Amino acid sequence: MKLFATVLLVSAFAGSMCAEDKPLVLASQGSFFVGGESKTITSPGRGPGAPSTQGEITINQMYVQFQTPPRAAQHVPVVMVHGCCLSSKTWETTPDGRMGWNEYFVRKGRSVYLADQVSRARSGFDPATFNAVRAGAKPPSELPPILDATHQTAWAIFRFGPSFNKPFPDEQFPVDAADELYKQMIPDLNTTLPSPNPTWKNMAALAVQLKGAVLIGHSESGFFPEQAALIDPSGIKANISIEMPCPDLTPAQITTLAKIPTLMVFGDHLSDVPNSIWGNAFESCKKFVDQVKAAGGDAEMMHLPAMGLKGNSHMLMQDKNNLQIADLIVSWIDQHVETQKSARRR
Amino acid sequence: MKLFATVLLVSAFAGSMCAEDKPLVLASQGSFFVGGESKTITSPGRGPGAPSTQGEITINQMYVQFQTPPRAAQHVPVVMVHGCCLSSKTWETTPDGRMGWNEYFVRKGRSVYLADQVSRARSGFDPATFNAVRAGAKPPSELPPILDATHQTAWAIFRFGPSFNKPFPDEQFPVDAADELYKQMIPDLNTTLPSPNPTWKNMAALAVQLKGAVLIGHSESGFFPEQAALIDPSGIKANISIEMPCPDLTPAQITTLAKIPTLMVFGDHLSDVPNSIWGNAFESCKKFVDQVKAAGGDAEMMHLPAMGLKGNSHMLMQDKNNLQIADLIVSWIDQHVETQKSARRR
Repeated sequence: MKLFATVLLVSAFAGSMCAEDKPLVLASQGSFFVGGESKTITSPGRGPGAPSTQGEITINQMYVQFQTPPRAAQHVPVVMVHGCCLSSKTWETTPDGRMGWNEYFVRKGRSVYLADQVSRARSGFDPATFNAVRAGAKPPSELPPILDATHQTAWAIFRFGPSFNKPFPDEQFPVDAADELYKQMIPDLNTTLPSPNPTWKNMAALAVQLKGAVLIGHSESGFFPEQAALIDPSGIKANISIEMPCPDLTPAQITTLAKIPTLMVFGDHLSDVPNSIWGNAFESCKKFVDQVKAAGGDAEMMHLPAMGLKGNSHMLMQDKNNLQIADLIVSWIDQHVETQKSARRR
Repeated sequence: MKLFATVLLVSAFAGSMCAEDKPLVLASQGSFFVGGESKTITSPGRGPGAPSTQGEITINQMYVQFQTPPRAAQHVPVVMVHGCCLSSKTWETTPDGRMGWNEYFVRKGRSVYLADQVSRARSGFDPATFNAVRAGAKPPSELPPILDATHQTAWAIFRFGPSFNKPFPDEQFPVDAADELYKQMIPDLNTTLPSPNPTWKNMAALAVQLKGAVLIGHSESGFFPEQAALIDPSGIKANISIEMPCPDLTPAQITTLAKIPTLMVFGDHLSDVPNSIWGNAFESCKKFVDQVKAAGGDAEMMHLPAMGLKGNSHMLMQDKNNLQIADLIVSWIDQHVETQKSARRR
């Protein structure tokens, strides 16, 4: 009942500010997988005494859900990949019931592809080690740690406020609906993955399959667009990286990435929480932007408070001003990617 | 590339048979959670040496994704819940790229709600036992078995043919695209759930929240609509159960269920595969239908081959004639649920 009250309220609000309550028209929608390979396993029986069976399962596939508006060919498709302990729910209806980026980008005329990371949500994961330990074939110490971030961790890492349940005065995350965000937080099994992370290869393959795409990553997946480009840049029209540490790269890697327009997005209060992860991340990505520019590339650091947008959290795609930030990104794509279809920019 | 060729081919085919390639118009869409409660855990650190932290996580929530067509108030919303080792992908684009039931029911004017079962996909699961065994706090024997059905198991249980990779001559499942189905098959963690299964309570709560809904279950979740009704029947307008065993029930339980229109759906070749699960399931559900009828209820067994539809598999919502079966179900809803809005039927 609370949800529905929220939806009504928000619907009225959205109607007063723009056209989000108009019917949504789709040319097509659907879902499919990218990648995946067969693996032979011994599958335990279900329930006590049930016999185990041997056979093949498919692992490392990436589930992708898409929506295409009419006349989508006018724009480059956008691929969105979620962060740690989350799924593609990240981009959908916000915890307080407002429109997510997935639908908003479609309403802005772009095909949107939401990918569940390999080993998460509808992409599934490889259960072999868990079952091998259960069967006594491997020691418990070989169990991969399953990361399930607590409410307390989320509050701190997502920068909702200086201490648990105490928001920043200008906090943009809808903290009254934090319980709804906590429901989105699910076990993270990335420690079960081989190296390199199959999601990177799958993102690169998806961009090729789409004959060109903008890749957006966030947090854990923030640098995945660049990692995908280092595997195969041929389908990638732009990389958009939201709030993550940028790793040290070789000059050859920088040269590859400098061929792709790149946008980094960071919110507010980076150094106002009791850990240094975001302040350090910001510095590492400023350095990356400088390196790409020095190599002749088109890279931009979009630091929201420097642009007058105050109080944005790590979950900025769910913040109260999430559509305003989406507009900035759409505009960046239009200027840095799409105007290059007919002429080199500047 | 193969996928896109398939989509083109199918699109042409769909266009020739009906209006599935017309734009889809939605009044609204989104996602939310039903249920969920807090649990205090010790979460392992990420990577060697990282400290563990204590705090709360949310468990037993059910992720729901919905689409609402214009004028949806004319019809009762439909809730679809997938089976074992699968996610809501079950109802979306078929393995060979055709339209799934999710979109088809929307095009038939109904609001559609897809729920990922608790402990699966975007609903997440409770990782506590796995991490406790890893930490040495519990023995490996307490690890829940993770069911990940193999390709070979799927071929047999889903009745694609008499032996692996050999289809029945009249098989309706698109077996050439079986590899795409195998990618949908993900680890099933239902053995981690408390009893009763929280999905049942969440389905009942969702029906109440929607002010009335038709619940559809399949296979593992085939009897979940009835289990939900036994917890709280107040929001449930009809139960549709696709291919599962029907349990023995008490007279009081039958009396409760007899107040809800009930449809059972079974496909073909029930006794033509090397196990007796489906023949037995069919008999148990015929008995259930008879019990409901004897208690004055409206129950029907829709055995597809008896209606002239031959060769349907266990995954009949993905079979080549999936939309024909959807039409039968839509028609059943219209006759057994919706005509009762203004007058008692018969």
